[in-house]
Amino acid sequence: MSYYSPSIEKLIESFEKLPSIGHKTATRLAFHMLDLNEEDTKEFIESILSAKKNLRYCSQCFNISDTDPCPICNSPKRDSSIICVVEDVKDVIAMEKTHEFKGVYHVLHGSISPMNGIGPDDIKIKELLNRINSSKINEIILATNPRVEGEATAIYLSKLIKPLGISVTRIAHGIPVGGDLEYTDEVTLAKALEGRREI
Amino acid sequence: MSYYSPSIEKLIESFEKLPSIGHKTATRLAFHMLDLNEEDTKEFIESILSAKKNLRYCSQCFNISDTDPCPICNSPKRDSSIICVVEDVKDVIAMEKTHEFKGVYHVLHGSISPMNGIGPDDIKIKELLNRINSSKINEIILATNPRVEGEATAIYLSKLIKPLGISVTRIAHGIPVGGDLEYTDEVTLAKALEGRREI
Repeated sequence: MSYYSPSIEKLIESFEKLPSIGHKTATRLAFHMLDLNEEDTKEFIESILSAKKNLRYCSQCFNISDTDPCPICNSPKRDSSIICVVEDVKDVIAMEKTHEFKGVYHVLHGSISPMNGIGPDDIKIKELLNRINSSKINEIILATNPRVEGEATAIYLSKLIKPLGISVTRIAHGIPVGGDLEYTDEVTLAKALEGRREI
Repeated sequence: MSYYSPSIEKLIESFEKLPSIGHKTATRLAFHMLDLNEEDTKEFIESILSAKKNLRYCSQCFNISDTDPCPICNSPKRDSSIICVVEDVKDVIAMEKTHEFKGVYHVLHGSISPMNGIGPDDIKIKELLNRINSSKINEIILATNPRVEGEATAIYLSKLIKPLGISVTRIAHGIPVGGDLEYTDEVTLAKALEGRREI
């Protein structure tokens, strides 16, 4: 049995469909929406519509952007001969926040995952190869996630690209800074040991 | 420095303004919005707009509703001679969920709080008195929250209404069902003791 009127019930349902929003939060958000004045409501809706309208994928790196090519691909300060390959748009942001990487990106929009029916043709691998063929690339950094699918994708890409005479690297796995050996899982610790370097 | 494009930055900000949504959740919601297809986006926006358009306050009880009077005030099954006075629309739902109350409601839309500059004229007290004067009321149940403001409002109302010869009751305070004496605060325990009944 529903205790709310149909309109608010519908609004709560709408919010409940969003990720990480449960029924209680959805209810709170719905009532907040009702309390908003007309201007704030318009602004909220406008921000959704304009994001949906303006955002597109960069035709080079497939990052999400208001412009094509995106500001990173378009920047003369970036070294377009080094491509960092990531799975997701959010990974680009994560890399950018380090302020360490001065090359450009390639967003795969997923990783190879036969279990989920995602093969090499379902992610932007073909487009990466096109980029490699059409311009001078010195290094491909594989920054896919250190999970089974990300590893598989990295190995697949390295086997494809290495024969072209391009340096292919993988980001290091190890104990996170501030981490604790005692609480680090065995796989990570093994990777950290394997990746040890002289100091 | 902003890492996102302006449109998505704006969208994240919009979500961040919502209650209980931090930056990380706002980012997740914003990206979710971008992933939605046109139809789902339209449905989401439509649910906000139609809720804002259709919902109004019931002119009798000031509950939020698609219709005026609201389904509760309009129901022939409800005893309109018993009014349960609550602070907020959400309190009506809380009471309805008990399935125990067969009377009608009156939503005050707040409680008397001199500290916050809210006096008796700022909440729907005048409207409650009008209802009492214009129809036959047998009992007023004061179900304001058991906090300082709710208590003050309850006392204020009881002093106003009792002289009119109407029975005025207050919901019981005590240990919640399933609660533990050991972990109950002193004030609640004192209230529970004070409100003891013969069994």
